[in-house]
Amino acid sequence: MTAEKSKKRGAELTHLDEKGRARMVDISSKRVTARAATARASVMMQEATLDLVLGAGIEKGDVLGTARIAGIMAAKKTSELIPMCHPIAITSVEMEFEVDRKASTITAVATARTRDRTGIEMEALTAAAVAALTIYDMCKAVDRAMTISSVQLLKKSGGRSGTFARDKE
Amino acid sequence: MTAEKSKKRGAELTHLDEKGRARMVDISSKRVTARAATARASVMMQEATLDLVLGAGIEKGDVLGTARIAGIMAAKKTSELIPMCHPIAITSVEMEFEVDRKASTITAVATARTRDRTGIEMEALTAAAVAALTIYDMCKAVDRAMTISSVQLLKKSGGRSGTFARDKE
Amino acid sequence: MTAEKSKKRGAELTHLDEKGRARMVDISSKRVTARAATARASVMMQEATLDLVLGAGIEKGDVLGTARIAGIMAAKKTSELIPMCHPIAITSVEMEFEVDRKASTITAVATARTRDRTGIEMEALTAAAVAALTIYDMCKAVDRAMTISSVQLLKKSGGRSGTFARDKE
Amino acid sequence: MTAEKSKKRGAELTHLDEKGRARMVDISSKRVTARAATARASVMMQEATLDLVLGAGIEKGDVLGTARIAGIMAAKKTSELIPMCHPIAITSVEMEFEVDRKASTITAVATARTRDRTGIEMEALTAAAVAALTIYDMCKAVDRAMTISSVQLLKKSGGRSGTFARDKE
Amino acid sequence: MTAEKSKKRGAELTHLDEKGRARMVDISSKRVTARAATARASVMMQEATLDLVLGAGIEKGDVLGTARIAGIMAAKKTSELIPMCHPIAITSVEMEFEVDRKASTITAVATARTRDRTGIEMEALTAAAVAALTIYDMCKAVDRAMTISSVQLLKKSGGRSGTFARDKE
Amino acid sequence: MTAEKSKKRGAELTHLDEKGRARMVDISSKRVTARAATARASVMMQEATLDLVLGAGIEKGDVLGTARIAGIMAAKKTSELIPMCHPIAITSVEMEFEVDRKASTITAVATARTRDRTGIEMEALTAAAVAALTIYDMCKAVDRAMTISSVQLLKKSGGRSGTFARDKE
Repeated sequence: MTAEKSKKRGAELTHLDEKGRARMVDISSKRVTARAATARASVMMQEATLDLVLGAGIEKGDVLGTARIAGIMAAKKTSELIPMCHPIAITSVEMEFEVDRKASTITAVATARTRDRTGIEMEALTAAAVAALTIYDMCKAVDRAMTISSVQLLKKSGGRSGTFARDKE
Repeated sequence: MTAEKSKKRGAELTHLDEKGRARMVDISSKRVTARAATARASVMMQEATLDLVLGAGIEKGDVLGTARIAGIMAAKKTSELIPMCHPIAITSVEMEFEVDRKASTITAVATARTRDRTGIEMEALTAAAVAALTIYDMCKAVDRAMTISSVQLLKKSGGRSGTFARDKE
Repeated sequence: MTAEKSKKRGAELTHLDEKGRARMVDISSKRVTARAATARASVMMQEATLDLVLGAGIEKGDVLGTARIAGIMAAKKTSELIPMCHPIAITSVEMEFEVDRKASTITAVATARTRDRTGIEMEALTAAAVAALTIYDMCKAVDRAMTISSVQLLKKSGGRSGTFARDKE
Repeated sequence: MTAEKSKKRGAELTHLDEKGRARMVDISSKRVTARAATARASVMMQEATLDLVLGAGIEKGDVLGTARIAGIMAAKKTSELIPMCHPIAITSVEMEFEVDRKASTITAVATARTRDRTGIEMEALTAAAVAALTIYDMCKAVDRAMTISSVQLLKKSGGRSGTFARDKE
Repeated sequence: MTAEKSKKRGAELTHLDEKGRARMVDISSKRVTARAATARASVMMQEATLDLVLGAGIEKGDVLGTARIAGIMAAKKTSELIPMCHPIAITSVEMEFEVDRKASTITAVATARTRDRTGIEMEALTAAAVAALTIYDMCKAVDRAMTISSVQLLKKSGGRSGTFARDKE
Repeated sequence: MTAEKSKKRGAELTHLDEKGRARMVDISSKRVTARAATARASVMMQEATLDLVLGAGIEKGDVLGTARIAGIMAAKKTSELIPMCHPIAITSVEMEFEVDRKASTITAVATARTRDRTGIEMEALTAAAVAALTIYDMCKAVDRAMTISSVQLLKKSGGRSGTFARDKE
């Protein structure tokens, strides 16, 4: 990357001012639009742990139910957790869980919506990440080596930056 | 896994009671011990984004400084975020960042300490994850496809469950 | 209730999706309207406790003043406490206290207002309930058997579901 | 009550100082003891609403699961909600729900534990009250007239004030 | 001040009702306007402490960087801290630090913006005050006698009360 | 200050590591001791504003009552506001207000106590500062030019650093 190009892109690190100092960027003049974002986070675990979560050894438990609520509530805490995030009017949060037995993985998929001047990727990412951390917490007594990965934005619509959709991998 | 073995392990999903319902497990009779945990979370990004974070295009900026503080403050919010986590007396949080230019990755490494009856993995994991989410937030205007991965416990000491150290990969 | 009717009503449990899983329902397409709700919560106590609160034995104290502020501040925490509640733009909260010496009861009455796409019953109910809990806390050293009851919505206006007014009892 | 007796009891409104002003009473010299408290809150609803919660019309849903987690998380917010409450080291929270079809009532029963210098009634009461408010929130679209009542301490042990057990009613 | 004039002004203590009781004043009918406010807070310290903050003895440290983020995050907590403040849609927060070596003082200057029915002085004041408190915290190990002063509004625009600009002193 | 002396003192900026990066310093090995701190914050206002607060024009109002509770509740939020502060077991908070008619000033004086490994100055300072900000908020409709000053520690006892008492000024 040439220095010039880099400088141009640097200007786009919107949460830094021209001196490189953190700020909450001014969105006063942006328009209110309907926005939606979907993000995911996957928890890789031992096969036996997955069995436990899905109820092989015990009555179908509250692991995923607890993770779903943790994720939804965490979306509402995004602007408290991420320093430069604006508080926004979240209008919806939904959490799904996809189980991949072959990969021994549970994937939390969060979709968040707003009608505001900014957002809503960080809310979706935070919901997915905290749901995954909650699964870790509920299972850590039997499987401390679980790993959370593929925390990423799947798609986003609304707002000036337009639509984003992750390529299939 | 046999049904019997599974049941035995199910009993160890300590945040579920015998009927599989979520609870905050009783730690009243556990001893106060010095505990420490180290966790990490990696952010994979485009090479040009990494350049920006490290200051190639702009004055060395506040991206990592902001992420460090976000992670430390998030550790203190762990019991608000993770439903079954106990509020504990955190005695220390430290955040390091490791840059791997070849892999175009920044890894947040959080170490948290306590003297309490439980903890402190979730605090270290939450600190690392929120630091990584903050890096994402600071850079998302130029690189929406970044992925957070390898959110995992590196080591843990103190407490009844003893010492844990992740194998080198 | 016939199964059919029940199913129809089930669809109206708006915080559950069609599979019965919790979600924060999507209000993106609802209109912003002026909304108001009034709720109450009553604390039944010993006559001597009521005397203390009202200042018979000590200078007129801060019990109700503290409960008023606790209720107002709690209204602002509603979406943090109630998992599926949307964060909304609260535009007003007022707390009144009604003393019924005959019934040895103090009733907290909270009125909350908003201009938003949803709300504002839960904010009014949370304000009234937390004000009542605060009265309990301030007096529990002398009267541990106090009971909070009649936590209920008195009236509500604005929004698609129209006006609600509780029948006199 | 004589003025003298009243004054004596007034001194016991420990969250007020001698001038009747609110304060967070000093517990520095109190001993750390194991403490437990159980509290309840009942939600009276229409029969058809109870059917919905219990799954007559839809797949057994998440109403009580969500209320359970809301109650447990609310216990951890007690000292943020109740102005004069001390932050304490909660060591356990459990929520049960008792259904009384005849009375068309669901009762949330919360048990909280700590090892600290004060507590733990307010935590148990807050957990039960917020669980009840959550049930209200989940069902309000079909039954706005639900009433929460009998929010009360059932029993308490540990601490200088000794054991409390509510008489059967 | 005559009693009459005083009464008239009393009516303007908008967070008290006609009986002098605290309330969150109703802003439902106020218009949404773009609003901005700038506030400051100064920390007076020993000359040697100022040297340390500015990096004379150690590598240029994180004192001001940490204070900047603390101030920005505190702005978002204003309605949680100040009982009668409305939750508002903050659209921007910026923190500057001005060093006066002669007076051995660091001044935090916070500018906050919103598009809402009320605000945004308290957000700017809270940001400046918490940034100053953070500087105190970071340096208190070497200089416990630091004093924070001149916490004041510098200017404000937008809203019915019009523009305010502090006279030069 | 010589470079050497400065370096030595720099080592005492305990919330920075040897590279000048923010951290929450490790207090795991410090002893639990009884600690107390008193801090103050003064609000200078117009004479007519002071009259209003003290009730000359309206019934003795809730301004100071609200500020007292705001200060006490803010003490409990200290570790959420100040990034490197440890969460500690606050055992008491008391707020007094001193009125100086000649200087047209109200001074909030907060005393906080703990039994923990660190603290409790920041809690006392935060309580005093937020009480002062609350007075500002309650009165700003009539007097936007009020200034908060003399936010400072008055005394501190307990802990390794020993007793601190501010000289009379």
